[in-house]
Amino acid sequence: MTSLTASKIAARIPSITDVEDAARRLEGHAVVTPLLESRLLNDRAGGRILVKAEPLQRTGSFKFRGAYNRLSRLGPDERRRGVVAYSSGNHAQGVAYAAALLGIPATIIMPADAPAIKVRNTKAYGATVVSYDRYTENREAVGGRIAAERGATIVPPYDDPDIIAGQGTIGLEIAAQAAAIGVQLDAVLVCCGGGGLVSGTALALNARLPGVPVYAVEPADFDDTARSLKSGKREANAPDARSICDALLSPSPGELTFALNARLLTGGLTVSDKEVFAAMAAAFTDLKLVVEPGGAVALAAALSGKIPVAGRTIAVVCSGGNVDPETFAKALAIA
Amino acid sequence: MTSLTASKIAARIPSITDVEDAARRLEGHAVVTPLLESRLLNDRAGGRILVKAEPLQRTGSFKFRGAYNRLSRLGPDERRRGVVAYSSGNHAQGVAYAAALLGIPATIIMPADAPAIKVRNTKAYGATVVSYDRYTENREAVGGRIAAERGATIVPPYDDPDIIAGQGTIGLEIAAQAAAIGVQLDAVLVCCGGGGLVSGTALALNARLPGVPVYAVEPADFDDTARSLKSGKREANAPDARSICDALLSPSPGELTFALNARLLTGGLTVSDKEVFAAMAAAFTDLKLVVEPGGAVALAAALSGKIPVAGRTIAVVCSGGNVDPETFAKALAIA
Repeated sequence: MTSLTASKIAARIPSITDVEDAARRLEGHAVVTPLLESRLLNDRAGGRILVKAEPLQRTGSFKFRGAYNRLSRLGPDERRRGVVAYSSGNHAQGVAYAAALLGIPATIIMPADAPAIKVRNTKAYGATVVSYDRYTENREAVGGRIAAERGATIVPPYDDPDIIAGQGTIGLEIAAQAAAIGVQLDAVLVCCGGGGLVSGTALALNARLPGVPVYAVEPADFDDTARSLKSGKREANAPDARSICDALLSPSPGELTFALNARLLTGGLTVSDKEVFAAMAAAFTDLKLVVEPGGAVALAAALSGKIPVAGRTIAVVCSGGNVDPETFAKALAIA
Repeated sequence: MTSLTASKIAARIPSITDVEDAARRLEGHAVVTPLLESRLLNDRAGGRILVKAEPLQRTGSFKFRGAYNRLSRLGPDERRRGVVAYSSGNHAQGVAYAAALLGIPATIIMPADAPAIKVRNTKAYGATVVSYDRYTENREAVGGRIAAERGATIVPPYDDPDIIAGQGTIGLEIAAQAAAIGVQLDAVLVCCGGGGLVSGTALALNARLPGVPVYAVEPADFDDTARSLKSGKREANAPDARSICDALLSPSPGELTFALNARLLTGGLTVSDKEVFAAMAAAFTDLKLVVEPGGAVALAAALSGKIPVAGRTIAVVCSGGNVDPETFAKALAIA
């Protein structure tokens, strides 16, 4: 964990105006993903569950929103020099596709053992993929060297005001979509890794629907945000922690994201791998939506009773659907 | 095949006005399903493929549209006496849910060996399910007896003007959604069993986008509509024909649907089971959408080159997503 002074952090925290500006930049480029609902799922849960379907977003996850917002702000010189990002998954694809749309050369630093399909897709979006050995090389060093050589801009996965503001457009859409169907939300549950998605979404919801509780949902052994919210300072996960939620394995909350989350979130919830598989199966059966493990934690929290659902209306963000067929089949078989 | 006189058929054929009226009735009840697109899928196909995502419709298939349109037109007396439908799948669920929303008692005649999940869902929507033995009993006789006893209205699966007009709202939405993103369609491909979906969709498209070719897509050995379009009269499928597309196993085109299709369709295309599995896998990987075999035939036709896609823009209707986990896992494993 690097550490900025409190005043430097405060100066970089995005506001609702930044989220609104991001929404204007994303218009016509990002998908306004639907808020899905299933009568049978509601009946089983005993309440109303509205699912913000980010697997239907460009590149199959919400990451495109932040990436496009960040990259669209680069000047002509910066665009020519290109961008660099580290990621084994959704951020890689989001940055690669946003860069392709904007005509910006992108280099993505991916571990040599990243899933083949994610490497293939990142290349297919037009990015240059540089492999590193995650056991013998430091990805920041590899990326930093490339960025320095080319004068390229590094695009962080979550701890960046434009990334947070881009993800926050999900909160604006949830508020508008709930209003359009005349629904008052009792709570909103959001998947949480480094906290970019939940902090941006909470920022937007706090402005549009003040008073509606927003929760971060994490895998059981990656509950750094839940523990940080309790202790009031950034806590880290155990180095030997494991989870099937490959998209949510950040070591600790970001500085900007935690500063926002500490102010805006009602709390943190956690779910087990088994609860995640059950939520993926429910999304398959009742919503016809492909959700990856890390994208299913918020739905899992609602379906496994981590907060009361009976007689209430809960919005959950399903954040992505980039899952390989074997893992998906396993989720369906186990659930 | 029963047979009405030509003039009686002509008098029952719906018009674009009927489709527009259906759209008004469905507003706020049916989902305006999104038109999905994937950059990677487009790149592989060499053209632009827009997917109308009816798995995201209420009850997981387009059948809700026609059912709701039909049932919403019943008078108070008819509503009290209830409705009866025969179906082992999507029509059952569409009628059951539409009836529940409108407060109409529904009885669905289902074969004793129907998939357990489809029986369970139909009951979960509030319908009474009556089983019959498909080898020793005639479902029309069972249903006719129940309808006669109660004075209930029989809701046919496709050969009905209100059912056709309801499904046609998909064509209105495709035309509006393509216009909203500034796209000119070169062709539209639609799944075809009895022909209700494709005839209604073609009716709407013919009015909104005249000149855009519309094709019916069928499983290889259930190509009754393709052959009927060629011969100019209603052809039947071989009684021993088999397909994984359980939603598309109608014995022959309907009278009303064929009268429309003969006038409006450019032709019929067919796909193999293997091509269907590959399309289901592509929808999983690139669109994050769960599509059942019968719902994937139109996408399969586009992806397997049954019409030219290169450099063109093709809209395909994915008509439903009610597939059991085992079949879905098999599609992913084979493709």
